[in-house]
Amino acid sequence: MSLTIALDMMGGDFGPRITVPAAIQVLENYPTLRFLFFGDHAEIQHYLPTSHRALSERITIHHCSRQIYSDTPIAQALRYSKGTSLRLSIEAVQKNYADACVSAGNTGALMGLSKILLQAIPGIQRPALTSLIPTMNGQHTVMLDLGANTEVSTDMLCQFAKMGSIFAENMLDLVYPRVALLNIGIEAIKGLPHIREAAAKLEQAIDLNYVGFIEGDQLLNHIADVIVADGFNGNIALKTLEGTAKNIIHLLKDNERSQPKWCAVWLQQLLRHFLKDKYQQLQSFNPDKHSGASLLGLQSVIVKSHGSSNSLAFAHAIEHAILQVKLNIPEKILTNLS
Amino acid sequence: MSLTIALDMMGGDFGPRITVPAAIQVLENYPTLRFLFFGDHAEIQHYLPTSHRALSERITIHHCSRQIYSDTPIAQALRYSKGTSLRLSIEAVQKNYADACVSAGNTGALMGLSKILLQAIPGIQRPALTSLIPTMNGQHTVMLDLGANTEVSTDMLCQFAKMGSIFAENMLDLVYPRVALLNIGIEAIKGLPHIREAAAKLEQAIDLNYVGFIEGDQLLNHIADVIVADGFNGNIALKTLEGTAKNIIHLLKDNERSQPKWCAVWLQQLLRHFLKDKYQQLQSFNPDKHSGASLLGLQSVIVKSHGSSNSLAFAHAIEHAILQVKLNIPEKILTNLS
Repeated sequence: MSLTIALDMMGGDFGPRITVPAAIQVLENYPTLRFLFFGDHAEIQHYLPTSHRALSERITIHHCSRQIYSDTPIAQALRYSKGTSLRLSIEAVQKNYADACVSAGNTGALMGLSKILLQAIPGIQRPALTSLIPTMNGQHTVMLDLGANTEVSTDMLCQFAKMGSIFAENMLDLVYPRVALLNIGIEAIKGLPHIREAAAKLEQAIDLNYVGFIEGDQLLNHIADVIVADGFNGNIALKTLEGTAKNIIHLLKDNERSQPKWCAVWLQQLLRHFLKDKYQQLQSFNPDKHSGASLLGLQSVIVKSHGSSNSLAFAHAIEHAILQVKLNIPEKILTNLS
Repeated sequence: MSLTIALDMMGGDFGPRITVPAAIQVLENYPTLRFLFFGDHAEIQHYLPTSHRALSERITIHHCSRQIYSDTPIAQALRYSKGTSLRLSIEAVQKNYADACVSAGNTGALMGLSKILLQAIPGIQRPALTSLIPTMNGQHTVMLDLGANTEVSTDMLCQFAKMGSIFAENMLDLVYPRVALLNIGIEAIKGLPHIREAAAKLEQAIDLNYVGFIEGDQLLNHIADVIVADGFNGNIALKTLEGTAKNIIHLLKDNERSQPKWCAVWLQQLLRHFLKDKYQQLQSFNPDKHSGASLLGLQSVIVKSHGSSNSLAFAHAIEHAILQVKLNIPEKILTNLS
């Protein structure tokens, strides 16, 4: 199967400096993959290695001089989006030139433009930003919505639960994934009315393995395969999780300052050696290493990579999009709902 | 100044086993302090050291055989609260027998009974659960509401901001503390309507140093002295923060399994020695070490200690209550509002 992915080359904090090497790396692993690059031609060319001519043949550069910056307010970004690398990438999917779109750019603009330009899956009122979060036992949990919808209805939460369940089933290869609702307690009377109503509805849903409420302190403990929240709380929870993990990792990495001068190099190396495994597991909680968030509920695959992505993270996001196209995630959601 | 504190001896996961030693420890540090103990007389007596007769003279035990368990649903807990150690402790404050009440028991019941039995400060619609959270630079940030009010109005958020600011000013000894609103972005158009409206109002408030929105990933970074949220989001954020920190600390402490057998004891000790400072800073993020949460907005001082508190944590919570009484926090809020 030959796939074509549209890439917004200008998005994120570093633009072509990281998007080009990421794309090249992914091309090497997928011999039939093709890319449509949207962005500044000269800048992209600057980072394209001349030695990779064979790979370059599978890349088509669509020059555009305009781009949406990460800090552009959403309303303004949407109003002046014509001809930007982000909008052109999404339009490539809209016009069926590409199977998926990946961007590390302005999240609000990516979600807004995707909703405007792409078709929603019938039965889904609003797409939800969905991500895989690592758990303490080395597995993953699907979490949604992470910020696409600040205000949601009971029905929307139930739709998120269904989409999340199908996503987990396919992406994590699970049978009957456990679905939980984010709440501030586990008793039935806890939380907000629409969350309690969603819980009552999900308990009745025979196609879902609803396991109850989950609290913020259990997110990493793999007690559910899918965690459903509105976009406001999902975003607060994910960012708090990422911020705490990042801060603590930083605290631990900051070795040099805390060790006395007489502490010889070999001792530092010894320390590093023994903490290696732990650092590696800790690193999995670092948002820069994530494979990006998917906008679930559209008939196309849209993946948002973290704004601060390095080339490894952006490559992961591209591979994440490829996997979703290969597994036909949007069609599976469509089939399940109808 | 002689102070009397009412203690719910039966609350929390361990009851008198930790509440009695905690109280004794605090009595040693405060020569004029008196305690009213509410709980099972025999059980309390069992943990009271016979050698501390001088201290025991400052303790009055009020026997009661009933208690509210942490997992009792709130509605039921409130309905059958008469004669429980928790309710009697709050009633002691209501009847002016005690200056403050401290409990590690059922949070919902503590908040519910406090609201029913104690007077609110005029101008405050609803009390808010308030805590000090540690920051990466070794300081603290005041955060509220952490779960007392799941649904709030614009005015309530503004009242929380004022109470939090006065609390920070006095408890952290700050001048013009920086106040921020928890949101999912820092642009003015981000988030929910009542949060945006609160932001607009707080910007106009000359008695407050409002600095804007704060996101979940910045909670530990001391960019604000007061973080204001509704009880639902505040609870999600705090629990996510605590759960992430606790999980990562656990991962790092789990030394024995990850080290090879030939690794001698001295090496382990060396490792522990070098990581000591880091562990200590990490431990400050452990919820078990916190000094408890205060229910701000009432004319009395009510402090909730973590359900899993050990005696050190419960002692911290008592000292936290003493400090609030000494600093006259409820009266300072009252004066500032009128």
